[in-house]
Amino acid sequence: MPMFDPTFVNTFHSPIGAHCSLTLGMPANEKKTHGGLGVQLGKPADEDVFIGVQSADDENLIQALPFFVADESTGSEDFVDSDLGMDDHYMGDLPGVRVEAFTPDQIVRRLDVGSDVWTVGDLTVRIDSPVRTLPDPHAKTPDHDALKLATCPAVTIELTVDNTKGAAPRVVFLGYAGHDASEKMRQFDRPDDRELGVVGIARGFTRGFASADPRVVSGQAFSLAALVKPVNPQNRRFALGPVAALTAEVPAGARETFRFAAVFYTPGVVTSGQNCAYFYTRYFDRLETVAKYALDHFDDYRGWADDADRWLARADTLNPAQRFQLVHTIRSYYGSTEFLDRLDASRHAVPLSHDGRTPMWVVNEGEYRMLNTFDLAVDMLFYELRMHPWTVRDVLEHYVERYSYEDQVRFPGDDTLHPGGVSFTHDHGANNHFSPPHYSSYEASGIRGCFSYMTHEQLLNFICTAGTYLHHTGDTAWRDKHAGLWERLLTSCENRDHPEPSKRNGVMSLDSSRCDGGAEITTYDSLDTSLGQARNNGYMAVKGWASYLLLEKVFRDRGEDALAERAAAQAKRAADTLVANVGGDGTLPALLNEEAGESRIISVIEGLVFPQRGGREDALAADGPFAALLAALRTHTEKVLQPGVCRFDDGAWKLSSTSINSWLSKIYLSQHVARAILGVELDPTADDAHAAWLCRPGNNAYWAWSDQHHSGVAKGSKYYPRGVTTALWLDEAGVHDAPG
Amino acid sequence: MPMFDPTFVNTFHSPIGAHCSLTLGMPANEKKTHGGLGVQLGKPADEDVFIGVQSADDENLIQALPFFVADESTGSEDFVDSDLGMDDHYMGDLPGVRVEAFTPDQIVRRLDVGSDVWTVGDLTVRIDSPVRTLPDPHAKTPDHDALKLATCPAVTIELTVDNTKGAAPRVVFLGYAGHDASEKMRQFDRPDDRELGVVGIARGFTRGFASADPRVVSGQAFSLAALVKPVNPQNRRFALGPVAALTAEVPAGARETFRFAAVFYTPGVVTSGQNCAYFYTRYFDRLETVAKYALDHFDDYRGWADDADRWLARADTLNPAQRFQLVHTIRSYYGSTEFLDRLDASRHAVPLSHDGRTPMWVVNEGEYRMLNTFDLAVDMLFYELRMHPWTVRDVLEHYVERYSYEDQVRFPGDDTLHPGGVSFTHDHGANNHFSPPHYSSYEASGIRGCFSYMTHEQLLNFICTAGTYLHHTGDTAWRDKHAGLWERLLTSCENRDHPEPSKRNGVMSLDSSRCDGGAEITTYDSLDTSLGQARNNGYMAVKGWASYLLLEKVFRDRGEDALAERAAAQAKRAADTLVANVGGDGTLPALLNEEAGESRIISVIEGLVFPQRGGREDALAADGPFAALLAALRTHTEKVLQPGVCRFDDGAWKLSSTSINSWLSKIYLSQHVARAILGVELDPTADDAHAAWLCRPGNNAYWAWSDQHHSGVAKGSKYYPRGVTTALWLDEAGVHDAPG
Repeated sequence: MPMFDPTFVNTFHSPIGAHCSLTLGMPANEKKTHGGLGVQLGKPADEDVFIGVQSADDENLIQALPFFVADESTGSEDFVDSDLGMDDHYMGDLPGVRVEAFTPDQIVRRLDVGSDVWTVGDLTVRIDSPVRTLPDPHAKTPDHDALKLATCPAVTIELTVDNTKGAAPRVVFLGYAGHDASEKMRQFDRPDDRELGVVGIARGFTRGFASADPRVVSGQAFSLAALVKPVNPQNRRFALGPVAALTAEVPAGARETFRFAAVFYTPGVVTSGQNCAYFYTRYFDRLETVAKYALDHFDDYRGWADDADRWLARADTLNPAQRFQLVHTIRSYYGSTEFLDRLDASRHAVPLSHDGRTPMWVVNEGEYRMLNTFDLAVDMLFYELRMHPWTVRDVLEHYVERYSYEDQVRFPGDDTLHPGGVSFTHDHGANNHFSPPHYSSYEASGIRGCFSYMTHEQLLNFICTAGTYLHHTGDTAWRDKHAGLWERLLTSCENRDHPEPSKRNGVMSLDSSRCDGGAEITTYDSLDTSLGQARNNGYMAVKGWASYLLLEKVFRDRGEDALAERAAAQAKRAADTLVANVGGDGTLPALLNEEAGESRIISVIEGLVFPQRGGREDALAADGPFAALLAALRTHTEKVLQPGVCRFDDGAWKLSSTSINSWLSKIYLSQHVARAILGVELDPTADDAHAAWLCRPGNNAYWAWSDQHHSGVAKGSKYYPRGVTTALWLDEAGVHDAPG
Repeated sequence: MPMFDPTFVNTFHSPIGAHCSLTLGMPANEKKTHGGLGVQLGKPADEDVFIGVQSADDENLIQALPFFVADESTGSEDFVDSDLGMDDHYMGDLPGVRVEAFTPDQIVRRLDVGSDVWTVGDLTVRIDSPVRTLPDPHAKTPDHDALKLATCPAVTIELTVDNTKGAAPRVVFLGYAGHDASEKMRQFDRPDDRELGVVGIARGFTRGFASADPRVVSGQAFSLAALVKPVNPQNRRFALGPVAALTAEVPAGARETFRFAAVFYTPGVVTSGQNCAYFYTRYFDRLETVAKYALDHFDDYRGWADDADRWLARADTLNPAQRFQLVHTIRSYYGSTEFLDRLDASRHAVPLSHDGRTPMWVVNEGEYRMLNTFDLAVDMLFYELRMHPWTVRDVLEHYVERYSYEDQVRFPGDDTLHPGGVSFTHDHGANNHFSPPHYSSYEASGIRGCFSYMTHEQLLNFICTAGTYLHHTGDTAWRDKHAGLWERLLTSCENRDHPEPSKRNGVMSLDSSRCDGGAEITTYDSLDTSLGQARNNGYMAVKGWASYLLLEKVFRDRGEDALAERAAAQAKRAADTLVANVGGDGTLPALLNEEAGESRIISVIEGLVFPQRGGREDALAADGPFAALLAALRTHTEKVLQPGVCRFDDGAWKLSSTSINSWLSKIYLSQHVARAILGVELDPTADDAHAAWLCRPGNNAYWAWSDQHHSGVAKGSKYYPRGVTTALWLDEAGVHDAPG
């Protein structure tokens, strides 16, 4: 009996880079449905999805997966009010026909990273999602065939009905009800759609389901029943109802399979601040051509899904809870990806061509939809380097070009300004609106908690991300393009330590002038000061140490030894400061030096991943120059992972001993560090506990993968891409490649 | 003391042809706000709008018109959960600052057709809406300057604060909170916006508020308070909150006026079935350029609003209830107008030019958003002929080109098919989706009530609309372009009477083959058979009589006397049948001939308006050829308007004696016919009753102008354009022109 069951958990089924998802898994209740076709959305679409078949036993019984509200009003009451006593039936359901959800006990789900298969009685539903490498679109001659296949905004769906024992034909269906007040349902009914060979249903221009199967017909009505058993088949062309469906008949005695695609399309300029269109608009001009292409390449996508499933299967040393979390986090990542083209000239006409476009990679921050949030980028780095390393460079480049700034710094409680240096914004904007150059959507002045500046953290994030990218790719051209930057980064780090070199201890002591009297925070913005405060934070100190190490390597590789020595000296100071802060119980306090308190944090070890991934394994040697630090962190980890410190009652990890808010992405990362770098033996039941959190019915199941859990309940950073820190586990399992 | 008070009634403030509205008037309650910036919507936007000023007496008191939910959650709880016990304030409100709505007793509103002015204390808010003629865009050399000014998708707003007695500066504001899950708030902050000289706030790309006043700044936050009294003024650039506002300071001792515009923009291809873009995209490429132009032409729009108000003031023989209903219906009409261009070639690129575009006029059907519904077009005809007669031709042409069809007919209960003829669909589609050629979105087969075919009614609607258009404009070129059509129309009418000419009685007796066993209905689709059934319907019979008269005139004008005689003969038969059906009490039954029952309807007189407007006043002479019919209808009207028949208890008109469902647009039309054609003296308290319906708090006030009322409660055809049958009253008052 597993501790977790993902059968009724919402999961993403997303194309790559289209910021959209067919989200399904959590059943509807009486009032609300929880899945659907979401486009540019930080949440499930909450639209009825109808997937099912007429019963073999009762032609008046229509059965569907439980992704719709059974007794929902149909919309026909806006036209005809029953209190008028009209004596005639209208264009609705035939008497006696009923639509019911399959019951939970009838449903078997096999959720994998590429495929997702529901089996219920003689109906099988399979949805394939692409998990694939992306060629570099900045290449001199980009591989457009591969890019088109990888970015086509669709996921493919197959419905199979085994009616071999059936005595009558049965109608199988795939439909949904869009409830947007402005963008309403339609059928693909243009003459040129018929030329294309596709039939479909859509909500406006942005999302729908399509088929190229000539047996499939489309329809629209006030209810599903009116489409499965219409008063008159001609009435399927009715266009006022909120329900649309694709239907087909399965003859008696036959087993038939029907292919569909969930298709998405967001036309035109989709961002402000900088004008961008989706990259895929180079290849597709509307929903209908997306459908045609996706259905023509159905077999390719099937193959990709199988490849992805086999790829994950190779990681067979991971436990089932880990593998489920890999599946769940990888799916969630793609739902937030947004592969754009920045447009050179005209803001309104987006041509179907490659001219005047520069590719731009964006990952949205889940429910918050901030663009390329740097403290997420640094965590998703490991997955992205495996799948499409050019996206890491793309984001870094965007930070350098538009979202860097120079500041000054000051000590807390002191107005004196000291030299600061270069740093980077928290994000590139939010909700598809790029923020003005040099400013994020998030950071505000004059405050000390959530929404304050993260100047120092983003500086470290840049160094860690860039250093890891450079080591992974060997992209010396990019490194040398920014030849002057590396010293500026070093100086900026040093200046935030202490204005007087002799007083430096390797750890941040000054806040950015942008705080304007407030105080810098860290990515852990909703935790207490154990992780929320930037200055003297142990988590930041280790990350700072790692940054100096990665900078040192850049300088050495470039032959700039004097700079390398400066970086190395700062790394040593940081390590010494950390070691000096080890308490009598062998643990490090969350806040170092004078601010020490009772908090203990797991996250202090996080930064160790960067020497590991950034080409500084030498610094991690148990008998190397930082042996004392490593020993201290190992002991710290073992101690805080004891019950009652950084553990919840269910065995799950508690990032800070003084907060009930724990973040799974960071837990995954710290688990990897503990196991693979510190060699700490971990209790695998924690993985079960984390998986069980994610499968908990209600809020947790609704939001697909969420990061911030309060005692196991998803509370923030929901519907989130950051969880792909799980990619680090694949290396532990010896899987170092990408699917296919 | 008036019987009606429109102070707290939602009204449209809409540009011409942009299918959008700043709807305001109904106050928010604790849970829901009722106005806002709606785009392509069949309902108010339900978004918070903030219009107000800091109190003169208390700088911590921010007062606004009651168009927002006072205690709404701010969205910040998605980022910071208060149960974490964080000890710091975040980027939200300053302690002690509160936002309150002005109380109803403080608010004075002066609602007119062009202007709408709220006065509350020392704040005055004026919104001007364009009510203007539209030049013909199909002209060889269209007047693009006039078209640009008339179609610019904006309404202008002025806020004045009298702070002459104030001892401190006060912040005045115009803001709103968009709650769409995908399209979120932003500020205009591009460098080229600053070059344009506009500052604005927007929900995505489609709607917002802007100013060109250099004293005005933009901001975004979790609450209005954070923008009026920010922790730090720099934080206005924060981009995560759902509230955005334009703010400005009114110095102590000063009286200052600030100009704004509500701006709308829907880019790209906005329709399916036929590819169309908004006509205004010829002139404007985005929200920002709309704002710039509207604000540059603020004085023009002010002048237009004054012209419109003066124009209506000239109709001084109308009572206040009638004038309010003119204001309300004209405003509602524009909210549903959608002035498009059909695109010739590429479906995805909509160039900023006049090439490859053919203008197309669409009126949406209010909450139902059906396109150019014919049974509305025939009612809105009189207003449109006054303001922009080319739109009438445009819609007729669209019906001829794409939405006509040929059918056969049959008697009820008999499968034998007889020759039918040409007719027209109910509509051109719905929700911006054009239906396939020759089919409406609405009509379905095999049924007898709502959603059945309206073949005969739409045939009559075509003849009445075309005949009236031809008489009004003298457009013989268009008449002769369709030289063969007029006889086909006549034949189609005759064939629906009886297949054997000798058995014709001038009245419809056969249903279209498209009904496929069902029965035709009329526009009164939600009434009982008194008005809902087409065959032998008295309302249809008079409209049929009028159609024959208008056809007769077309034939006479074209010198086709034999055809004219055929039409005249049918008119005579219809009149005779009607007169023969007068009962012992002097009234006509709703259903003629064998189907007579107890129902009595006012609407039987409706069709008299077409001879009046279509050049057949001769047929309406009291001593003319149809004297008996006119006398019968006059007596009928006087009888049914007695209490207990076609009146509600409050004196309002009840279209059918057997239904509580009464339609204001049709009441207005019948009132005109009764007064101006039949010379019936009407009780003016009915106008007060109708105005009181529209001003009733709750549903009625929410939906702005609605058509279908059940015993005075708005139940269907809400947020509706059809009420401009009030335009007929202007002629009664001697106002025959358009504003300006």
